[in-house]
Amino acid sequence: MENFGILTNRSKDPDFEMTKLIAKWLEDNNKTVVLTTELLESSEDNKVNMADEALYKVMDCAIILGGDGTIIHSARKLAVHEVPIVGVNLGTVGFLAEVEKKDALNVLEKILSEEYVIENRMMLSTSIISSNGNMINAGIGLNDVVVTRGGFSRIIELSVYVNGQLIDIYYADGMIVSTPTGSTAYSLSAGGPILNPATEMMVITPICPHSLTARSIVVSGEDEVWVKVEDIRNKEDGDVLVTIDGQIGYKLNKNDKIVIKNAAHKTKLVKLKDNNFYTLLRKKIGCHLKERKPK
Amino acid sequence: MENFGILTNRSKDPDFEMTKLIAKWLEDNNKTVVLTTELLESSEDNKVNMADEALYKVMDCAIILGGDGTIIHSARKLAVHEVPIVGVNLGTVGFLAEVEKKDALNVLEKILSEEYVIENRMMLSTSIISSNGNMINAGIGLNDVVVTRGGFSRIIELSVYVNGQLIDIYYADGMIVSTPTGSTAYSLSAGGPILNPATEMMVITPICPHSLTARSIVVSGEDEVWVKVEDIRNKEDGDVLVTIDGQIGYKLNKNDKIVIKNAAHKTKLVKLKDNNFYTLLRKKIGCHLKERKPK
Amino acid sequence: MENFGILTNRSKDPDFEMTKLIAKWLEDNNKTVVLTTELLESSEDNKVNMADEALYKVMDCAIILGGDGTIIHSARKLAVHEVPIVGVNLGTVGFLAEVEKKDALNVLEKILSEEYVIENRMMLSTSIISSNGNMINAGIGLNDVVVTRGGFSRIIELSVYVNGQLIDIYYADGMIVSTPTGSTAYSLSAGGPILNPATEMMVITPICPHSLTARSIVVSGEDEVWVKVEDIRNKEDGDVLVTIDGQIGYKLNKNDKIVIKNAAHKTKLVKLKDNNFYTLLRKKIGCHLKERKPK
Amino acid sequence: MENFGILTNRSKDPDFEMTKLIAKWLEDNNKTVVLTTELLESSEDNKVNMADEALYKVMDCAIILGGDGTIIHSARKLAVHEVPIVGVNLGTVGFLAEVEKKDALNVLEKILSEEYVIENRMMLSTSIISSNGNMINAGIGLNDVVVTRGGFSRIIELSVYVNGQLIDIYYADGMIVSTPTGSTAYSLSAGGPILNPATEMMVITPICPHSLTARSIVVSGEDEVWVKVEDIRNKEDGDVLVTIDGQIGYKLNKNDKIVIKNAAHKTKLVKLKDNNFYTLLRKKIGCHLKERKPK
Repeated sequence: MENFGILTNRSKDPDFEMTKLIAKWLEDNNKTVVLTTELLESSEDNKVNMADEALYKVMDCAIILGGDGTIIHSARKLAVHEVPIVGVNLGTVGFLAEVEKKDALNVLEKILSEEYVIENRMMLSTSIISSNGNMINAGIGLNDVVVTRGGFSRIIELSVYVNGQLIDIYYADGMIVSTPTGSTAYSLSAGGPILNPATEMMVITPICPHSLTARSIVVSGEDEVWVKVEDIRNKEDGDVLVTIDGQIGYKLNKNDKIVIKNAAHKTKLVKLKDNNFYTLLRKKIGCHLKERKPK
Repeated sequence: MENFGILTNRSKDPDFEMTKLIAKWLEDNNKTVVLTTELLESSEDNKVNMADEALYKVMDCAIILGGDGTIIHSARKLAVHEVPIVGVNLGTVGFLAEVEKKDALNVLEKILSEEYVIENRMMLSTSIISSNGNMINAGIGLNDVVVTRGGFSRIIELSVYVNGQLIDIYYADGMIVSTPTGSTAYSLSAGGPILNPATEMMVITPICPHSLTARSIVVSGEDEVWVKVEDIRNKEDGDVLVTIDGQIGYKLNKNDKIVIKNAAHKTKLVKLKDNNFYTLLRKKIGCHLKERKPK
Repeated sequence: MENFGILTNRSKDPDFEMTKLIAKWLEDNNKTVVLTTELLESSEDNKVNMADEALYKVMDCAIILGGDGTIIHSARKLAVHEVPIVGVNLGTVGFLAEVEKKDALNVLEKILSEEYVIENRMMLSTSIISSNGNMINAGIGLNDVVVTRGGFSRIIELSVYVNGQLIDIYYADGMIVSTPTGSTAYSLSAGGPILNPATEMMVITPICPHSLTARSIVVSGEDEVWVKVEDIRNKEDGDVLVTIDGQIGYKLNKNDKIVIKNAAHKTKLVKLKDNNFYTLLRKKIGCHLKERKPK
Repeated sequence: MENFGILTNRSKDPDFEMTKLIAKWLEDNNKTVVLTTELLESSEDNKVNMADEALYKVMDCAIILGGDGTIIHSARKLAVHEVPIVGVNLGTVGFLAEVEKKDALNVLEKILSEEYVIENRMMLSTSIISSNGNMINAGIGLNDVVVTRGGFSRIIELSVYVNGQLIDIYYADGMIVSTPTGSTAYSLSAGGPILNPATEMMVITPICPHSLTARSIVVSGEDEVWVKVEDIRNKEDGDVLVTIDGQIGYKLNKNDKIVIKNAAHKTKLVKLKDNNFYTLLRKKIGCHLKERKPK
């Protein structure tokens, strides 16, 4: 790895202090920093600082400064170029950032010494096919594709298919199709299981379904999932929405069909050899009720 | 009971066929029908035909023709006048209608013979107090008061108090405060328990909470519950909503506090003596997996 | 309050160090200690040291040294005498103990100054009626009455009735009937809601039911619940058990009916005026995923 | 396919009526029936009639007459010989039987015409390693491996590892490790997700865990899962058990480690080309609450 990009969430590193520190350290170690802080400061985007496509192409590694949201945002842009990502966590502890702010330089040193592995994370590609046959390529996501009701409407009617076979018709608040990476995000809140992120699977989790028998269904990473808008109770505009990673959204119409499948590209996470998912899981969502431990 | 009102959901009895049949039968049995079909047909309201307040006052009993939604709608209007309700189900089988269409006249005959009991159903009164101290009386509901996110936002931050004591702060899609009657509606879909409708309790159920430890909490019917909007992620208009029975809605702002308590009035349901809630429950949501019964 | 009993779980205060300290402090404050440490040390029972009935009668207040299990154990013995209880927690933090070991004397001082309230906790009385009509009074419990399969059998068939009306027939691992106090114990693990402990209700929670539509049902404290053993798959001895508070157990036979209702007596907990249930709940089972809080 | 075995659950075909009918039909179609009814009738085993190993070896196809339990029982015996299975359902509708009794001959006709596919179902191999290093090969299962408490004990302490990495320590009633086939059985009752049975995954589902944050975890079919008995509250004999498919059981001791992994052999189900899992799922556990469908 010679050329390092740095993508900073300005709201979490307002004066580019951390960005500059890392850039300087990389240059001191004879690496090329693709995005200089000057470039960063001239950026218009005040949420996540995104270099343009040309720059992504020359990066051997992208260092993302921010939280899980920043990493997910960047992952969608970088995946097509297969640029490995190192997340430096400037927010609350996340599932995707590999390193806390204070340990950033130590970890970069390990990476320069090649003490890392690349973990491939499955992504979802999404397209929207409307009833007249028009198709929109809605982009790819690292976490999930979510179809929900909007506004004052409460219930929507959705049908879900796997490889063209009907799973069921649901009256619900919505439907989540999640990657293993996304299984610890919204799907978990809606009652879904945790999927080991090294696998390629999808979990389909209904949100507040009317039927008490509706459950999360785990399908293969090779399957193609369709979520179709069967009915909208109130005919108001914007009553049904699809969002990718909770960051990109589209309004849907009756009979729109969302086609979700394994994306051609992976998010490549740089992982230290001694980190593992289950340790992170215990730290993040485990909450042992030691005090309830019976005598 | 001498004076009977008839409140018809026009979409379920489009030509007032059933309405007229019942009105005639009542008149043939020497009862007074407060709402004539002429009055009904001149109504502007094309969803549920609502007589005005003066007419409610003279009713001894209101016959509601429609589904559970119609009964809930009518219950909110009639409760203040303490008019007993008989629901005649013109839709799919519901929890509140006492009688199916085909049995309507038989059941009315029993009612005229006084073979019934009145079941009081707890209702919720709701007010919205904004950060500047303004208060809106948002009305009463028979099922539930629901605070949810709207539009593209996903997570809202809500705090919940009981009698002024903080229960918890939730990052969630929303919060449901339900009566026993409403416990088999939205709260059940969100994972809540079933409350016997003859009791006076409230169940507070978070919708897709971030914290996996958040659970439904059942409090006394004497308690006062507050749901406060602590934060809205995206500052767009209409991001948080409160709805009563899924039928009346208001947009909320940051720091708005919803005050929910036992309403002064009850919905009075006319029940035949041989009907009971658990039989209905088994029929409505029970779904015995006989075939999974092990040998 | 003049006469104080002290009931110590010897395994948590092996040398009676804390017991003696409290006894001396009470005597220094001119109170009578009903159970002297000499009495305690002569006890045969090496789990929870229980004075005999005569002594309970003269106690104005019982100080329980141990954990929640010790308090529950003592509560069953003391309830009939209506002796107020102060739990001093010698274990991991519990729901019932009012005070941690280190604060014990401070809290006792407040109690002598009458800065407390008595909180009445509903208890359950349980009897077992066998198919030949024999009845066993199985005792009272503060937490729950649980019917479960035992040994290698997995599924049992249970019917549940409220006031003689069938709720449903369940194929399940078992059934929990819990007080509000017990709602944060086993019922919670099995998916039940939390009930405010100041109320009088019961929650009926099936354990791993076959039917996905089976849910917790909350009934009034005035209701009488029956759990009947309909069938046992494997006819081996001891295949179905009933346990009260997880501490007292009986083996059941086919057609045995467990009758559960509000007990005549309450557990009287001495509570400091500034403590409340929801604060305890947040501390005990709340586990805020601050780090999952989105930007 | 020339040589057909017939394995009959005698309790479901007491006079071998169906068994003889199928045997005759096969012989009329010039096929060899490996197990004659004479052989069956001489069997000692009065639950599921099992031919000996020699006979399994010559079968090209095994026709199982019974319910899902019979098929699971037979599957464990046949897997090592890779004999394709056709389940003829003599019980309540099941997930594994391909054909109902009345359609049996029609389906066999299709099978003779080669209108079928073979669906491979993942199985689990299980061994028990005791603290002194002894290992027992506990056999293979098609549904699940379950570690549970037995008798009057309630809570056991179990640790779960995947590929040698600790997932977590659980205080619970038990732990289920399930195949995709088993995901619609006990794991579902305990709150687990549904896994498409054509995939190779395992789902680890805790039973009534103390910690509210414990959730089902889905791992790859290549992973090796360990469940270790960390502690047993009451030291009585038989307090912890492991069962395979709910049919084979062993008592466990403290520190015993159950090693669970993808078995070397598959259960080979003969499936008609037009049957699919999701249709079956809707029929079996779906229970649409049409009547709750809002207007």
